[in-house]
Amino acid sequence: MVTAELSEQTSRLEAFSDGIFAIAMTLLVLEIRLPEQNAPGTLGTALLHLWRSYLAFLTSFATIGVMWVNHHRIFNLIRRTDQAILAFNLLLMLGVSFLPFPTLVVARHIQTPDARTAAMFFNGVFAVIAFAWGFLWRYVTRRPHLLHEEADHASIHAISRQYLLGPLYYIVALLVAIYSPLASVLLDLLLAIFFALPARMFHRQSTNP
Amino acid sequence: MVTAELSEQTSRLEAFSDGIFAIAMTLLVLEIRLPEQNAPGTLGTALLHLWRSYLAFLTSFATIGVMWVNHHRIFNLIRRTDQAILAFNLLLMLGVSFLPFPTLVVARHIQTPDARTAAMFFNGVFAVIAFAWGFLWRYVTRRPHLLHEEADHASIHAISRQYLLGPLYYIVALLVAIYSPLASVLLDLLLAIFFALPARMFHRQSTNP
Amino acid sequence: MVTAELSEQTSRLEAFSDGIFAIAMTLLVLEIRLPEQNAPGTLGTALLHLWRSYLAFLTSFATIGVMWVNHHRIFNLIRRTDQAILAFNLLLMLGVSFLPFPTLVVARHIQTPDARTAAMFFNGVFAVIAFAWGFLWRYVTRRPHLLHEEADHASIHAISRQYLLGPLYYIVALLVAIYSPLASVLLDLLLAIFFALPARMFHRQSTNP
Amino acid sequence: MVTAELSEQTSRLEAFSDGIFAIAMTLLVLEIRLPEQNAPGTLGTALLHLWRSYLAFLTSFATIGVMWVNHHRIFNLIRRTDQAILAFNLLLMLGVSFLPFPTLVVARHIQTPDARTAAMFFNGVFAVIAFAWGFLWRYVTRRPHLLHEEADHASIHAISRQYLLGPLYYIVALLVAIYSPLASVLLDLLLAIFFALPARMFHRQSTNP
Repeated sequence: MVTAELSEQTSRLEAFSDGIFAIAMTLLVLEIRLPEQNAPGTLGTALLHLWRSYLAFLTSFATIGVMWVNHHRIFNLIRRTDQAILAFNLLLMLGVSFLPFPTLVVARHIQTPDARTAAMFFNGVFAVIAFAWGFLWRYVTRRPHLLHEEADHASIHAISRQYLLGPLYYIVALLVAIYSPLASVLLDLLLAIFFALPARMFHRQSTNP
Repeated sequence: MVTAELSEQTSRLEAFSDGIFAIAMTLLVLEIRLPEQNAPGTLGTALLHLWRSYLAFLTSFATIGVMWVNHHRIFNLIRRTDQAILAFNLLLMLGVSFLPFPTLVVARHIQTPDARTAAMFFNGVFAVIAFAWGFLWRYVTRRPHLLHEEADHASIHAISRQYLLGPLYYIVALLVAIYSPLASVLLDLLLAIFFALPARMFHRQSTNP
Repeated sequence: MVTAELSEQTSRLEAFSDGIFAIAMTLLVLEIRLPEQNAPGTLGTALLHLWRSYLAFLTSFATIGVMWVNHHRIFNLIRRTDQAILAFNLLLMLGVSFLPFPTLVVARHIQTPDARTAAMFFNGVFAVIAFAWGFLWRYVTRRPHLLHEEADHASIHAISRQYLLGPLYYIVALLVAIYSPLASVLLDLLLAIFFALPARMFHRQSTNP
Repeated sequence: MVTAELSEQTSRLEAFSDGIFAIAMTLLVLEIRLPEQNAPGTLGTALLHLWRSYLAFLTSFATIGVMWVNHHRIFNLIRRTDQAILAFNLLLMLGVSFLPFPTLVVARHIQTPDARTAAMFFNGVFAVIAFAWGFLWRYVTRRPHLLHEEADHASIHAISRQYLLGPLYYIVALLVAIYSPLASVLLDLLLAIFFALPARMFHRQSTNP
């Protein structure tokens, strides 16, 4: 812990990343905006018309939330960080902190002639982030001394499989966006739920105290 | 701690949630805005006219503040998290990070013909969040192995009662909003103070060192 | 630590408060805004004309920064929290998270006919926060079981004196604002530096390892 | 730890600074904005035209990210803080939390007649922050009792050399801005990567478990 080589415990990296995750998730709400003027008595309608913003908010919130759960899971297995892990993590955080922008783009354009561009941009960003996760995980699994000795092989393989498939899912969603932008955003929401589900299996094993 | 099953200590979940609470509470201030142009010498009047914004800010700040105290209290009793607790917590955080939006809606419309809609929306969001707290707590109390062994039964029952009543209070406030939107927001402010009070009783017991 | 009475270690309260301090300080920068349109070649002048915003940013940043140092110092002496300390702390955080608004008000109006109102509002908010610090500290010092046993009496008395004088200084600055709004803001900046200085004395004692 | 002299562990200072770093990095995205109205079917072009904003976002994100890595590295070597370190750190945080403003200025003006002013302002702020890092580090290295006893001399000297050169690099970039504002911003981005690289050397030593 007292070395300058940065091969150290992961606690500060986790605290910093938690900050980025929490802020990116909370800033999303700033993208939900009522029109400046609305005729008296039409607030109810205006709130309903914001469903695009709610959908984009929900999809990005769920996706970042699942990323946080994954970050949590991975760094429970990682024993110590090195300079490369710090750099990979900064790359991930770059993607996470950028997400409020594509979220706004998709919320504003999902029912305009630009819907396809917006949904492809949204999914493109997700795909890039999924690749960054894959790189980080690949770097770590090839350097077993960075992992906790007790780290369970089954868990490592399950995560590896998930991170191999991650970018593929978002590329599929990106292709879906060509035909139906709205369907691709709904698919992203389902993907967030899917990424949350696999760990349920681990959960079943761990309910016995 | 070194398992991938995520049945682990609650420290990182708490740090992440503290981030969301702190950011949501601090973003509320961005909703308080002076009109772009105001005649010279009228700043005092303009600041007084913002009382709707101050009231909405104060009500949401107090409510999120009390939620933070409750989160604190609950996770003191919880020994370890599992995947479901992470998911329930994300649902809660979704509600908390959404709150700046209904706060803005109520601040802008509490004295317009749309006051009723605004106040009902505000209270509807609070009621949904109160239900989410109830679900989380119910999940935890039915799995005693997730609780600290020394967790005190009286405290658990007191919290259970409070979380059973929570959604009811906000539904009552929602119904009050039909007749008087302003009264319902004031009621929310009182509810935040009420939710802070019960723990005073615990406090009396603990003042003896 | 495993009780529901919330008479517990201060670590989570500190983490949560650090979040509020950090966010409030960082949000201040959003108040610095260039005019939407400016003639080509006039950016340099426009950046210089923002000195009011820089001064307000710097004053509020320094004041919140010193508050953070004080929070740090006080909670080093406090051994455990109770419900009342949580409530007092939320009150303080309410003041801290509100500060970006008076900062914006003073930045926009310090050279308009509304300068006096703006500066009095700014100082009024500071005075209220100073009172809240006093209440918190008074509550703690009257309950010695909440303090660390090794807590040094000289430090406690030094802090008590400082918190007695705190509100007075801001009331003086508020009165100065009647005659010179700009001078009162400069005085606030000096006050922040003054509040940072006394601890220098403690520092001298502690430089010997 | 239980003293009022603030000569104490660095954990809370690190948590607070992590908050500022994380928020400043995440707020940068708010500066990326689509024009309010854009003709239907032109979203793709509009997204491409934002390259100035992406470049400014990326440069500031990478620079703050590298500052975080440096903060991390320095405070691993520092055993305890004193009042002066808290003050130096606040000065650094002042610079970090101010950065979203020059980032916005450079994004908006990098291809206008004001590009030179914007890029010089941007680099001027970076140079001031680099000086603040130098002051902090110089203060610490002259007080060996503040450093961990095991702190490695080679690391300390490597950091000292880097912090001596830091301000020079940004002054060079500032001078480059006179001739080519865009080149100076690209240079800043390269500098961020350069500042990340040296630690790679340490990494090589630490890969043996």
